[in-house]
Amino acid sequence: QGTRDHPPSHVVLRDRLLAAVVACFKRHGAAAIDTPVLELRETLMGKYGEDTKLIYELQDQGGELLALRYDLTVPFARYLAMNKITNIKRYHIAKVYRRDNPAMTRGRYREFYQCDFDIAGQFDPMLPDAECVKITHEILSDLQLGDFLIKVNDRRILNGVFAVCGIPDSKFIPTCSSMDKLDKIPWEEVRSEMVGEKGLSPEAADRIGEYVQLHGGLDLIERLLQDPKLSQNKLAKEGLGDMKLLLEYLSLFGITGKISFDLSLARGLDYYTGVIFEAVLLQQNDHVEEPISVGSVAGGGRYDGLVGMFDPKGRKVPCVGVSIGIERIFSILEQRVKASGEKVRTTETQVLVVTPHKHLLGARLKLISELWDAGIKAEMLYKKDPKLLKQLQYCEDTGIPLAAIVGEQELTDGVVKLRDVAKREEVRM
Amino acid sequence: QGTRDHPPSHVVLRDRLLAAVVACFKRHGAAAIDTPVLELRETLMGKYGEDTKLIYELQDQGGELLALRYDLTVPFARYLAMNKITNIKRYHIAKVYRRDNPAMTRGRYREFYQCDFDIAGQFDPMLPDAECVKITHEILSDLQLGDFLIKVNDRRILNGVFAVCGIPDSKFIPTCSSMDKLDKIPWEEVRSEMVGEKGLSPEAADRIGEYVQLHGGLDLIERLLQDPKLSQNKLAKEGLGDMKLLLEYLSLFGITGKISFDLSLARGLDYYTGVIFEAVLLQQNDHVEEPISVGSVAGGGRYDGLVGMFDPKGRKVPCVGVSIGIERIFSILEQRVKASGEKVRTTETQVLVVTPHKHLLGARLKLISELWDAGIKAEMLYKKDPKLLKQLQYCEDTGIPLAAIVGEQELTDGVVKLRDVAKREEVRM
Repeated sequence: QGTRDHPPSHVVLRDRLLAAVVACFKRHGAAAIDTPVLELRETLMGKYGEDTKLIYELQDQGGELLALRYDLTVPFARYLAMNKITNIKRYHIAKVYRRDNPAMTRGRYREFYQCDFDIAGQFDPMLPDAECVKITHEILSDLQLGDFLIKVNDRRILNGVFAVCGIPDSKFIPTCSSMDKLDKIPWEEVRSEMVGEKGLSPEAADRIGEYVQLHGGLDLIERLLQDPKLSQNKLAKEGLGDMKLLLEYLSLFGITGKISFDLSLARGLDYYTGVIFEAVLLQQNDHVEEPISVGSVAGGGRYDGLVGMFDPKGRKVPCVGVSIGIERIFSILEQRVKASGEKVRTTETQVLVVTPHKHLLGARLKLISELWDAGIKAEMLYKKDPKLLKQLQYCEDTGIPLAAIVGEQELTDGVVKLRDVAKREEVRM
Repeated sequence: QGTRDHPPSHVVLRDRLLAAVVACFKRHGAAAIDTPVLELRETLMGKYGEDTKLIYELQDQGGELLALRYDLTVPFARYLAMNKITNIKRYHIAKVYRRDNPAMTRGRYREFYQCDFDIAGQFDPMLPDAECVKITHEILSDLQLGDFLIKVNDRRILNGVFAVCGIPDSKFIPTCSSMDKLDKIPWEEVRSEMVGEKGLSPEAADRIGEYVQLHGGLDLIERLLQDPKLSQNKLAKEGLGDMKLLLEYLSLFGITGKISFDLSLARGLDYYTGVIFEAVLLQQNDHVEEPISVGSVAGGGRYDGLVGMFDPKGRKVPCVGVSIGIERIFSILEQRVKASGEKVRTTETQVLVVTPHKHLLGARLKLISELWDAGIKAEMLYKKDPKLLKQLQYCEDTGIPLAAIVGEQELTDGVVKLRDVAKREEVRM
């Protein structure tokens, strides 16, 4: 349940998608690492808040207690701490496992790919952060997924906002998780969840409401820096200063047109400590003025405390990264391919080796072996004496563009007849 | 235990290796499929004989009882049966899991890659089988691993040999597993294991001994076809006939020089029903005449009954395939790279964007963004005002061949200075 077999047509499309993502990661100088699917159970515990219950555990068959990785970020932090690496730019594309309620039509599975790019190390503020946002922008542009928006925020700004609204620290994460829904449901419903389920006072919720509905650019940052309450909060001020720097860098990258500083962005994970961001695809809708969001396809942020949790001396390695939501993007591309009627070839065979009559198996085997040894992608039918028509039909069915035909006459003349299957033209060579 | 993190230097080398393997699989017209790491526990039970105890089981957290796949062959057969596919040529490269005693120095892990190519379908005899052997030959040649030998045999021939030696069917698999050791230990020791542990009579063991020490080519097949006892056995005769056909096809492929029909080859797995083969690397040894084997690097065979085990009506789909022992090959290549002193680059960055003095961060961000958007692999240091020397040193350390330098003068002139890091030559452009 919640997993699936991928037939060749899937794999071809997925490989195409992953190749574009990897090309971008390499363009930014990242190296690839790989870690096991199996992690010690204790490595994963206490890293995912409430979602810890979604971790797949292995049976105790003797030896270490194991679990399947839940994401690639915690294994990355464990890897850095174990190997005392303080400086790396890496990508990792691999499957992760979650005992979630699958919603396969929306691209949510129990086994799915993550594509992560992270920069670890102590650097000047916001330079790696800006690159992660740039990468998100490049990938979504390269894949031509249509219009998109990258929302950015900072956990420190949220912390400051919550503090000045009189919300205790203990309610930070629960309140964030309510806020995360502002994407899908209107503020009134989010507000009543905050008051009803999360136990905020109606006044505090209203105060929050004034902030979290704000979004904009540098102008909004300037306004908030003038805010009499917020400007008194140390964390918020730090966050706003860095946010200003980030937007300046993104402006030099020429991508601010698709960036929105959005105070409602919270993101679920515990471990973020600074900048957070999330990319959503937009869809023009005839009935309303503004384009509507059709869901998040990438996200990331800064997590400066995670590596320290795995270091015996608690040494910190600041990190920032982005994860591309390949499964949702795959669903979109798949629908698009279906709609376009494009016939996706699942093999790359260039030529079928064909004999036009009986008793020529030996000639076929000799020729195909020559082709393979010359690096040419070639197939033949696994029949001693196949009919000519059947062989040509196989080309048409599987999209093989050429047939290399060798009969008695060709053998005598020391040539082959090369047939362009679509044009039905032949040359002797 | 038994798993490992792969640092960038590993991944680069492994990707190089896998690219060669995939290129060969695609050259032979194979499509890729992917199946989940998780399988239903019942799917894996009863397929691996004694080794079933090495399967990793997941904890019962509610829902289906799951296990981690042990190889790619059983999931492939399950995939064919579930999707009623009767005809496919596919490859699958993925990790499998075994609760084995790890022997990491010899490349034996609990999590490791398998690279499988299989042909499923009802075809004329030995054509797909010959292609699998050809693929093995191509990959080992392409990877330049040194001299190798591909041993071939047939389960039906072994069956016949055992029958005429008076060994009951029930002892077929245990006797095969003793025979498998003939590679490493002399016949006398294998014989005493057969008699002592496996309960064969000394006479039966001696009769087997006469057969299993035979190896050769077409001549040996002819001799065995004349063997008064063996030629009376139906299975052996079938197997010998097909073996003759196989060697004829391999001769047309021009590869019989590295093929040995070897009656001692048994292979461990239960599910083989026909041809089996195994490739071993050979090492010239000064002290002995014959080259010695340094271990198996690929193997495969025909399994015509496996798919039927997953079909509710027991419909059979004949299959033959090969699995490339990528982990052992990786160990060999890794040692070779180490010995050669080759410095493997872990990133592909073409150019570092460099500023020679302060207050030029903006120029650097603008230029690098232009390069990225033009598809050029570019990096910069994540510092506002890095020293020129530090930047050039980074190029030397990481093997970046070019530095694009932009200072006040270059900005004024609208050019960049492109520096060849190794030659220390610069051009303005």
